Amino acid sequence: MPRAWLLKSRPDGMPDAGNFELGDIHEAPLAEGEARVRNRWLSVDPYMRGRMNDVKSYVPPFQIGEPLQGGAIGEVIESRAEGLAPGDLVQHMLGWRDEAQGPAGHFTKLPALDVAPQAFLGQLGVPGMTAYFGLLDVGQARPGDTVFVSAAAGAVGSTVVQVAKAKGMTVIGSAGGAEKCAWVKALGADHVIDYKTGGSLVKALAAAAPEGIHVYFDNVGGAHLDAALAVARERAHFAICGMIDVYNDAKPTELRYLSRLIGMRVTMRGFIVIDYFDRIAEFHKDMGAMLASGALKSQETVHHGLEAAPDAFIGLFSGGNTGKMLVKL
Amino acid sequence: MPRAWLLKSRPDGMPDAGNFELGDIHEAPLAEGEARVRNRWLSVDPYMRGRMNDVKSYVPPFQIGEPLQGGAIGEVIESRAEGLAPGDLVQHMLGWRDEAQGPAGHFTKLPALDVAPQAFLGQLGVPGMTAYFGLLDVGQARPGDTVFVSAAAGAVGSTVVQVAKAKGMTVIGSAGGAEKCAWVKALGADHVIDYKTGGSLVKALAAAAPEGIHVYFDNVGGAHLDAALAVARERAHFAICGMIDVYNDAKPTELRYLSRLIGMRVTMRGFIVIDYFDRIAEFHKDMGAMLASGALKSQETVHHGLEAAPDAFIGLFSGGNTGKMLVKL
Repeated sequence: MPRAWLLKSRPDGMPDAGNFELGDIHEAPLAEGEARVRNRWLSVDPYMRGRMNDVKSYVPPFQIGEPLQGGAIGEVIESRAEGLAPGDLVQHMLGWRDEAQGPAGHFTKLPALDVAPQAFLGQLGVPGMTAYFGLLDVGQARPGDTVFVSAAAGAVGSTVVQVAKAKGMTVIGSAGGAEKCAWVKALGADHVIDYKTGGSLVKALAAAAPEGIHVYFDNVGGAHLDAALAVARERAHFAICGMIDVYNDAKPTELRYLSRLIGMRVTMRGFIVIDYFDRIAEFHKDMGAMLASGALKSQETVHHGLEAAPDAFIGLFSGGNTGKMLVKL
Repeated sequence: MPRAWLLKSRPDGMPDAGNFELGDIHEAPLAEGEARVRNRWLSVDPYMRGRMNDVKSYVPPFQIGEPLQGGAIGEVIESRAEGLAPGDLVQHMLGWRDEAQGPAGHFTKLPALDVAPQAFLGQLGVPGMTAYFGLLDVGQARPGDTVFVSAAAGAVGSTVVQVAKAKGMTVIGSAGGAEKCAWVKALGADHVIDYKTGGSLVKALAAAAPEGIHVYFDNVGGAHLDAALAVARERAHFAICGMIDVYNDAKPTELRYLSRLIGMRVTMRGFIVIDYFDRIAEFHKDMGAMLASGALKSQETVHHGLEAAPDAFIGLFSGGNTGKMLVKL
């Protein structure tokens, strides 16, 4: 019988295995217009932590006893929906489960680009769109700019690094530990800062960007954001994408350089990738071409089997992944 | 002999009288193209505190032993410049002194609007432009919006309140103490929050704006900014104008609600009024009409005599002013 991960309890701080429970999916016969999909790949992403809290946000919270939702790639195994046939590869948001059933509108057939299907959970999926529009639209990054990106070894950050390089920018990436830093460097970053060495981020960043930064792509918040403020150039744009530093933590963010917002006329803008879903065709075209040309590398950290999903998710918050964190079923 | 206030030493934290020194101005004969102006009104403004530090900013720091600069209104008493004649009232930025001498380009004749000359240091001057463009351009405030403004009894804040009301917005102002709050209410604010009562700013703001705020005009930073983040609506705009909370203080700003930037897609933008100086005609037209129609009230806290300038300035940081703080010579 197919199974799904249910939210057993809401985490207080860092999530642990006890917050999750594996349950059976009781399948119903397909209604007219529905399809059934056997999942091949599941995505775990930091934003899911926010949905585990019972607070109003841009997406509703996960409900106790209900399956966790999230991006997945699967194969249609049964269909009563026009346009979906067994064997079709589709993307959906029904998440952490062996099989997904629902109306055809829940499933999007993968476009015919010459890439591995799980790329649609990474560089051609939500993390890629986040990187692409966050850098170019929210961050207003232009060729010649100096761009700083935190969590540069992560799914979003590693794509930011590469899109920025492909577009002719100077890139400074931060990551934790020698292995991740080497990966960021291999992606083409001009400077890499290892934030785990415990040195001053402000000094490291000022050394890497003596003229300051035009754009900051923030995946982290906290001290990274503060350091970016410290070295922001006039009219810098900060694309605020994530604050993994505070997702599990009730501590306030301490900013020493916030008043530079004024003197330097910095624009800080929070964004959510769903606001860009209507521009997916533009994204697939530009990003697909970059991927097909070999201009972009990707790396995956793959956990195997549905059972591994909570571990994969929890690993996101302890630096357990380089590149996109995936679960292969 | 005319005198000027010189910067004697750089303050460490809150400025005090010992940081200032009154010195004689040794006048030179006018060169061709120069004018001499007898000052009538001097402006003291919070941003001057930043210029007392020896750090690179959008305007160069004041130099030790040199006169403090700032907005002033005076009367031409001697001229070798075309277009400036004795008796003309002019505005200039040469600051804290009895008399100012310089090339004609340093002096701007006051336009013929039917207002008191010191209005050009207030609602028709830099504080007024700051309020006007900060609210309408940076903050993108539109009729029907709910606007929160901190330091609403100050020169900038009190103008924000009134321009917002004149443009059909709902206004929440914060100020310290019953007297200032009564003044803000008298200006037309729909809700006034007395931040000195020590209650939760977040709760007070949530009660005043149960649907949240569209725009925050920040003169204060710190807890006010955090409370504004806590109640920001989707796609709210924050015009970051000043952070008087941190000008004298090396403490970091603590923000508990910063991650709402993301979920609510908030845009925070720092700005400096000098970026809008090229739009002064548009400003004089709209603001002059509002002033002439009686739609705007103003209040001044006036100190008398050049000797009083440092006290007037220091008073800005202890809540010593309602409305525009001025020195009358």
